[in-house]
Amino acid sequence: MDPDAVAKAFVDHYYSTFDANRANLGNLYQDNSMLTFEGQKIQGSPNIVAKLSSLPFQQCKHSVSTVDCQPSGPTGGMLVFVSGNLQLAGEQHALKFSQMFHLMPTPQGSFFVQNDIFRLNYA
Amino acid sequence: MDPDAVAKAFVDHYYSTFDANRANLGNLYQDNSMLTFEGQKIQGSPNIVAKLSSLPFQQCKHSVSTVDCQPSGPTGGMLVFVSGNLQLAGEQHALKFSQMFHLMPTPQGSFFVQNDIFRLNYA
Repeated sequence: MDPDAVAKAFVDHYYSTFDANRANLGNLYQDNSMLTFEGQKIQGSPNIVAKLSSLPFQQCKHSVSTVDCQPSGPTGGMLVFVSGNLQLAGEQHALKFSQMFHLMPTPQGSFFVQNDIFRLNYA
Repeated sequence: MDPDAVAKAFVDHYYSTFDANRANLGNLYQDNSMLTFEGQKIQGSPNIVAKLSSLPFQQCKHSVSTVDCQPSGPTGGMLVFVSGNLQLAGEQHALKFSQMFHLMPTPQGSFFVQNDIFRLNYA
C-alpha cells in the first residue's frame, strides 16, 4: 500500500464529500476525533459535523495544490498535510487554506480522522 | 501542563533557533524523525540538519501568525500546526508558510520532533 496514494485518495474523497454535502463527512470522524477550525476546538463526530454544516456559506469548491504525508508512528497512523484554495459561491476571489489530518486505521482496514486542524491563509 | 503553552514554547524555541543558527536544530530531531520540505522527504537528524543548513539563504526571520495544537493519541504525542511569514535577508516581500510538527515525549520529560512537514503558501 503506497501511503502517498492512500493520502491522495483520502483527500480527494474528503473534499469531494465536503463540497457535495458536508453532513456526509460524519462517518470519517469518531467520538474522540478532534477538529480545530480557525482556532476553535471541537470534539466528536456529531459536533464536528454540526460545526462544518453551520459554516456561513452554502456552496464551495476545494482545489488542492499540495498533499504531503508521513507515517505518524508505530500505531499505523498517517499524517496528511494539504494546501489549496477554497472558492465560496458568490465570492470573487478564492481563499487559500492549509489543513492537516491525522488518520488512524480502523479494524475494517480503512481510516478515520483522529485529528483535523484547518486554517485559512490570509494574504 | 497546558498543551497550548507547551506548543507555543516549542514554536518560539524552534524558530528562534532556526533564525539564529539552523545547525543547532539537530538535537530536536532523532534518527527516525521525518521532514518533508516542499515535497522532498528527508529522514534522520543529520540529514534534516544538512537540508535545513543548505537552504539558499543566509539569514531569515520567521514571524508566527497562528499556533494550533492537539494531542495525537495515547502515546503522549502532540500535533502542532503553525502558519506565519518568513522574511529572507535581501528580499522585499515575506513568504507565507505553513508547517506541522508531531512532537513525541522523551524519557527526560521533553519533546522531540517525530514528524515535520513544511510548505510555502504561494500567492
